[in-house]
Amino acid sequence: MKLLNTQNIMIVGLGLMGGSYAKALKRLDFHICAIDTNSDSIDFALENGIIDEGFTSPDPDALGKADILIFGLYPNVFKQWIADNQKYFKSGAIITDVTGVKQCIVYDIQSILRDDVEFIAAHPMAGREVYGVRNSTEKMFRDANFLVVPTEKNTPGAVEWCKELGRLLGFINVTVLSPEEHDKMIGFVSQLTHCIAVALMTCSDNTHLADYTADSFRDLTRIANINDNMWSELFLLNKEALLSDIDRFMAEMQTLRDLLESDDREGLRAKMRLSTERRAAFNKK
Amino acid sequence: MKLLNTQNIMIVGLGLMGGSYAKALKRLDFHICAIDTNSDSIDFALENGIIDEGFTSPDPDALGKADILIFGLYPNVFKQWIADNQKYFKSGAIITDVTGVKQCIVYDIQSILRDDVEFIAAHPMAGREVYGVRNSTEKMFRDANFLVVPTEKNTPGAVEWCKELGRLLGFINVTVLSPEEHDKMIGFVSQLTHCIAVALMTCSDNTHLADYTADSFRDLTRIANINDNMWSELFLLNKEALLSDIDRFMAEMQTLRDLLESDDREGLRAKMRLSTERRAAFNKK
Repeated sequence: MKLLNTQNIMIVGLGLMGGSYAKALKRLDFHICAIDTNSDSIDFALENGIIDEGFTSPDPDALGKADILIFGLYPNVFKQWIADNQKYFKSGAIITDVTGVKQCIVYDIQSILRDDVEFIAAHPMAGREVYGVRNSTEKMFRDANFLVVPTEKNTPGAVEWCKELGRLLGFINVTVLSPEEHDKMIGFVSQLTHCIAVALMTCSDNTHLADYTADSFRDLTRIANINDNMWSELFLLNKEALLSDIDRFMAEMQTLRDLLESDDREGLRAKMRLSTERRAAFNKK
Repeated sequence: MKLLNTQNIMIVGLGLMGGSYAKALKRLDFHICAIDTNSDSIDFALENGIIDEGFTSPDPDALGKADILIFGLYPNVFKQWIADNQKYFKSGAIITDVTGVKQCIVYDIQSILRDDVEFIAAHPMAGREVYGVRNSTEKMFRDANFLVVPTEKNTPGAVEWCKELGRLLGFINVTVLSPEEHDKMIGFVSQLTHCIAVALMTCSDNTHLADYTADSFRDLTRIANINDNMWSELFLLNKEALLSDIDRFMAEMQTLRDLLESDDREGLRAKMRLSTERRAAFNKK
């Protein structure tokens, strides 16, 4: 399985991520089709040369020609779309996605998918606080990580193919991990941080403090500007992992609170030194 | 009271902040002296033209010539230094500081200070994750806020003088607020965020996740690289305000946790929409 720029790519769901994939792959001379129920998105992408062909509903002919299908849909919509439209897929086609949770998606889709088509899951860990194809840009991949998330059903060829896709898109790091490892990691690194940012903004009305804001507060709440539709779904689809991350984080906040209340300066300093030491591992990246 | 560049400025404590003040004021042709117990810091600053004169202990002659004294010391050291050395101050001198907490400092110092010298407190809300005069730079003031924190004892002239100092240093915003308002605000905007960043790093050993880090996690933990000596002192000196901020934040985390556990998607979405709406107030700044 090779990525050849003579291949036809079909992007289903032309939002911020689908549009950014389209831009990155178009520059490499792939032929890009897209399907999105929003005709504005399709029109904009056609007018700006982001895609070669566009449709506002599943087009059997176009789907039958696609060698590669990339899904930029919300998790719950994604499964139903595959169930409804896989009959149009070309035999030997390869499918990938951009979904931010994996266990609840990957096994289900692989179990319903036709035997002559392979689904290799991926998670491009890039994002912006704005939405839609109009804001899409392949630049957001540059300093970001691309995760390939295979199961035992995947072929080694598909895993290699997907790693190559991540590199072609321009990601700085391409890593392979299981759906279970992925969801555990993403619960901590991404979902817990969004939960904290929301809690910081909603725990009291502090908008009058905007005049005094330090960089630290601005950094911690950048992601408090959040797509409620997408993130509430992602939270709920990774509920167990996220609940346990929240519990672990809150227990540690309680420990710090107790050290502060009991004037335990050395205890606070030890926590701060551990924090600084661990953070160094992230500085290098 | 006017800021004239014929005046002698004495900086006591030539660290990151003291050094940055020195650089900003030297460019405006003020005559800059500094005192720091670390002879390396003084030597470096002299060799690099950051200061005009330097001392490693309180020099009676130099202190007697200073029209303006700027204190970049840790809170507890600062009080003792004033008690020990104010006998050398020039009559009519004006004193300011850079301390990150105010109620525990300002009233004490004003009560022990000689009647012919005025202390007007200030908090330059700028910082870096590195320390010392070698890392000082006036650039960190550019997008930052300068807070003037007067009490009833201060003269209107000193308040205006201090506002002008903030503008001369290059701060984008200069604001006046009381020590009580200051400490309440800083507990939420700065100390709580540092506490959260530390808890995120120390709640479990997640350094193996560095390969997968998203921008969100990097942003939230940038300040987890923390000066334990300084911040443990700042936390304890603003203990009551910080404890109540931690409690409010944790109660809200618990609410989000409960919404998630009970699959209350609409409840989660309402919190996320409120978060996005409030965050917009900070985007404008």
